[in-house]
Amino acid sequence: MQPTNRQWILQARPAGPQIDRAMFEKRESPLPHHVRDGEFLVRNRWFSCDPSQRAWMDAETYLPPVALGQTMRAFTGGEVVDSRHPGFKRGDLVTGLFGWQDYAVSDGRDALGPVTKLAPGVELQSALSLFGITGMTAYFGLFEIGRPVAGDTVLVSGAAGATGVIAAQLARLSGHRTIGIAGGADKCRWLVQELGLDEAIDYKAGNPMEAVRALCPDGVNVYFDNIGGDMLDAGLANLAPGARVVLSGALSGYGDFDQMPVIRHYPNLILKRARMEGFLVFDYLARTAEAVTRMSPWLAAGQLSNPVDIAEGFDAAPDALIRLFAGKNRGKQLVRLD
Amino acid sequence: MQPTNRQWILQARPAGPQIDRAMFEKRESPLPHHVRDGEFLVRNRWFSCDPSQRAWMDAETYLPPVALGQTMRAFTGGEVVDSRHPGFKRGDLVTGLFGWQDYAVSDGRDALGPVTKLAPGVELQSALSLFGITGMTAYFGLFEIGRPVAGDTVLVSGAAGATGVIAAQLARLSGHRTIGIAGGADKCRWLVQELGLDEAIDYKAGNPMEAVRALCPDGVNVYFDNIGGDMLDAGLANLAPGARVVLSGALSGYGDFDQMPVIRHYPNLILKRARMEGFLVFDYLARTAEAVTRMSPWLAAGQLSNPVDIAEGFDAAPDALIRLFAGKNRGKQLVRLD
Repeated sequence: MQPTNRQWILQARPAGPQIDRAMFEKRESPLPHHVRDGEFLVRNRWFSCDPSQRAWMDAETYLPPVALGQTMRAFTGGEVVDSRHPGFKRGDLVTGLFGWQDYAVSDGRDALGPVTKLAPGVELQSALSLFGITGMTAYFGLFEIGRPVAGDTVLVSGAAGATGVIAAQLARLSGHRTIGIAGGADKCRWLVQELGLDEAIDYKAGNPMEAVRALCPDGVNVYFDNIGGDMLDAGLANLAPGARVVLSGALSGYGDFDQMPVIRHYPNLILKRARMEGFLVFDYLARTAEAVTRMSPWLAAGQLSNPVDIAEGFDAAPDALIRLFAGKNRGKQLVRLD
Repeated sequence: MQPTNRQWILQARPAGPQIDRAMFEKRESPLPHHVRDGEFLVRNRWFSCDPSQRAWMDAETYLPPVALGQTMRAFTGGEVVDSRHPGFKRGDLVTGLFGWQDYAVSDGRDALGPVTKLAPGVELQSALSLFGITGMTAYFGLFEIGRPVAGDTVLVSGAAGATGVIAAQLARLSGHRTIGIAGGADKCRWLVQELGLDEAIDYKAGNPMEAVRALCPDGVNVYFDNIGGDMLDAGLANLAPGARVVLSGALSGYGDFDQMPVIRHYPNLILKRARMEGFLVFDYLARTAEAVTRMSPWLAAGQLSNPVDIAEGFDAAPDALIRLFAGKNRGKQLVRLD
């Protein structure tokens, strides 16, 4: 029997910030066309769940929105199962924008650049988290945009999320006093006791702006913000002179600006002579090796943790994405295909 | 008869963003104490009206708020009429934070740094506008924070205001396509026909966000924002890749953050890999000569205009400040003392 290609099809656009399961329809199709010269066939093993997927559902970003009736766009990791491409052979592990489906045909590039072929010994799970766009967002956002220097206090919002948990650990491992903001006492305990952050603020337990002020009476030097809105304001209200506010790509996951949570403390950027800057990780992916080189010893020594939150099975994909926006994940949300 | 010292006393703090005339009380006091060694007496000839004065009325900024019952803080320009200070002699012209009063005693420094003694031939009126903090805010904000390069489109909000009108002209004189935002057809005509801007947007005549989009289909490279809120959002919604948003000190004139007009298009800083940065002009005043050197030839050639809007007489001060926030001034608002 010919294998089929299960796909999650985008069949409706969100009316507001929320994603609903009914926006996706499961379909079984024949396999993609036979590979031609210069192409290869990937069998997906893992789906990555990323905030940017919300934006892709209806917004013009650095990519056009996913067309209705098409496979939902997603970063995935898989195995090359057939190839007529000189750079890829059967058994190679790859990550790329292959979408929420079992199989995809690729010519070695996706809409954002070259497909990544994993170095020997690297697992797909790591390539979709610490050593993929998530970890690179944390690394280059913190060090290239935030540029912490000795003595700095680093604040990270969404600190239990995929990018935040890496950014916060990198700040701490670089010797900076590091404070995470997360939702719930359990997450906060985890951040401090398991991951070694200096402090954690439970934004559900009180006013985060006041909590930041209490912990940072001299202000925050680097704020790595993954959330926007009130969380961003909580940092903006407590900037140290010369502060840098890193707007992480995670923020861009909302789509409709009219629905975007507002901020009002931006004039503090003037009073504190501070800078707020955004970036897209895709501009830095050519420098992945640099980040991997710096992070690997910490990982090998057990000082850097790469938490992943795994949902099981193809059918779990929509709920896993929804879970992300409900803040239920700890670390990177992945889906393992059955 | 002994001369008296007229003073405008701050007697009530604003309840919201608006300034009311009744917040100031006119008082006549004896002259300040006799000058001691190392001091001099200034007779004010001009008051400067600045947005920062609104913040000084109730907010902690880079200075504590003005105490109730004290003379309203203001930059002023005057003449030394008595001196026991080695650096200042009778007849010297000076600018500094001497406040809304006829006379002030100084030791050569004010709360923000050294008092400025004017070079021979410079008029007080220029020293309080183009060659003072207003012009320096425009110059260093544009060139040090905005950093326009060849081919850039520069957008300036509050373009008919004191700082905006200088920033916009400097952008144009540096060869950049320059678009101003101002309120009213008259101001817009003036900006284009008299001051040579490429385009002007009347924010009262339509949706400024759409107007910016229509004029800048490829986006704005440098946005010099003096206003915040909706005007800031109009620029943030239309950024070019790599854009720089300059938050001018004028913005800081609001005081109460809870009253601050919100913004919601900040995630565009991510999608456009853009930077939004604030600054305080006081950090650059030691480099005033550099700006004067660059601006003077343009001024002498009649290419750079230094528009000032003059209110006549000591009694006009509160209304002149209120006028500023109503957007009625063209260029720098000054008060000439009788």
